[in-house]
Amino acid sequence: MASSNLAGEAETLLGLHHGDDILVLVNAWDVISARLVEEAGFPAVATTSAGVAASLGYPDGERIPVEEMLAAVKRISEAISVPVTADMESGYGLPADQLVERLLDAGAVGMNIEDSRHGEQESLAEAEAHGQLVAEIRAAAEAAGVHLVINARADVFLLADGPPEGRLDEAIRRGRLYRQAGADSVFVPAVEDEGVITALVQAIDAPLNVLVRAGSPPIHRLAELGVARASLGGGTTRAAYTVLKRLANEIRDEATASAINDPEIISHDAVNRLLE
Amino acid sequence: MASSNLAGEAETLLGLHHGDDILVLVNAWDVISARLVEEAGFPAVATTSAGVAASLGYPDGERIPVEEMLAAVKRISEAISVPVTADMESGYGLPADQLVERLLDAGAVGMNIEDSRHGEQESLAEAEAHGQLVAEIRAAAEAAGVHLVINARADVFLLADGPPEGRLDEAIRRGRLYRQAGADSVFVPAVEDEGVITALVQAIDAPLNVLVRAGSPPIHRLAELGVARASLGGGTTRAAYTVLKRLANEIRDEATASAINDPEIISHDAVNRLLE
Repeated sequence: MASSNLAGEAETLLGLHHGDDILVLVNAWDVISARLVEEAGFPAVATTSAGVAASLGYPDGERIPVEEMLAAVKRISEAISVPVTADMESGYGLPADQLVERLLDAGAVGMNIEDSRHGEQESLAEAEAHGQLVAEIRAAAEAAGVHLVINARADVFLLADGPPEGRLDEAIRRGRLYRQAGADSVFVPAVEDEGVITALVQAIDAPLNVLVRAGSPPIHRLAELGVARASLGGGTTRAAYTVLKRLANEIRDEATASAINDPEIISHDAVNRLLE
Repeated sequence: MASSNLAGEAETLLGLHHGDDILVLVNAWDVISARLVEEAGFPAVATTSAGVAASLGYPDGERIPVEEMLAAVKRISEAISVPVTADMESGYGLPADQLVERLLDAGAVGMNIEDSRHGEQESLAEAEAHGQLVAEIRAAAEAAGVHLVINARADVFLLADGPPEGRLDEAIRRGRLYRQAGADSVFVPAVEDEGVITALVQAIDAPLNVLVRAGSPPIHRLAELGVARASLGGGTTRAAYTVLKRLANEIRDEATASAINDPEIISHDAVNRLLE
């Protein structure tokens, strides 16, 4: 994507959160995965931090150096022509202005910024501190002339933080706070209950992002519930590499390789064409 | 792998070409794929140039800068403890001593070196010229104190070079020549016919590597035919990303995501454990 048009791409991405259809993000972790998602017709591509980190050799949770994460984002954004939104975890400890500058340099026009903090143990940031980070990112992006699409993540359910009966209220409180701080959408991962999802949609005055994982309502049902954005996260990566694991186990145990004979397997030429 | 032990690792890899069992290489293209193959119990990991290139955004055929290919090899070799053999295409135009030095720096103790040449069109190198390259690589490796395991590829069948009735003889001629030049094994991709495979095994006085792809005899049959080394090549990558493509298409068309609900899907925690 031409960096000269980042503002326009950001506007396009933002518009996808307010269209008639739910925005579905089939998260990519490298260039060929991003090209396949683009080729399938999706109007934007999101990265998965877990997937990018795994492909480059790091566990999830900000263990990957930010330079390597941004280099992966840049490889993807240079290879596709739809907007890219990058999972930037909790910001890698960078000041907001540096984070925004480097993210835009990498060609992304949207970002996830989560309120998990990755120390010895995962923990939830103070809501107000995370709201402040969101506000600083917003200010830095506006100063750069791009309405970066900020998807602020409230990880109350993901981290199972606090007593179960208080999580919905806390997620709503955080979502509202992040919205007021300048987030364009609020991401609450690890919610599957339709009542909880409906409550989040109704109580947070922002497009709601829900993670699609095993046990989630299907995407068409999420759309009916009012969810604006559904993302697959690292599940895409894990689904793909599960096939490699199964293939390796089959070769080890049976000395056959069924997945290679999949009649629908992408051809070598097709891969090359996607990358020309 | 500790670089201090490259010579020992190379010896281990070479031994796997002369054991009772066929050496099977489930080719990896990034760190998590390599870790999964290692975890499945395979005694060595080979890279696929096509897969590495695709993940980083390049079509196959030496379009990827050698620095990026070697960086991927290094990420893999640093993450696993079994020997790594790297697909180095036709050597990226590097002088043999530089190629060997950089490959060993990247932690690989084996390499594929193919007699395809990647210009405007793919073409077959003169056999003698490729034999000379193999000899130079062998000399450079010995000078470095490591018996790098050279898997010399004869691409007569892959490129469908010359009249069909002459290909077997030409592949045998090349295989013998590369063996005499110092190759440890000879790789003839794109042969599926059992008679052809048997003839190659019998005529080339070196362990034979066959590519497992759709239509190949199963690996247990290749072992019966006397094949010493069976590799999956870029088929592993394509099998995995076919699942991503299918998932993306299903989400687009049905708004469901079956692969995410695969009961055998690798968990987020399992991925992280593989990378700790």
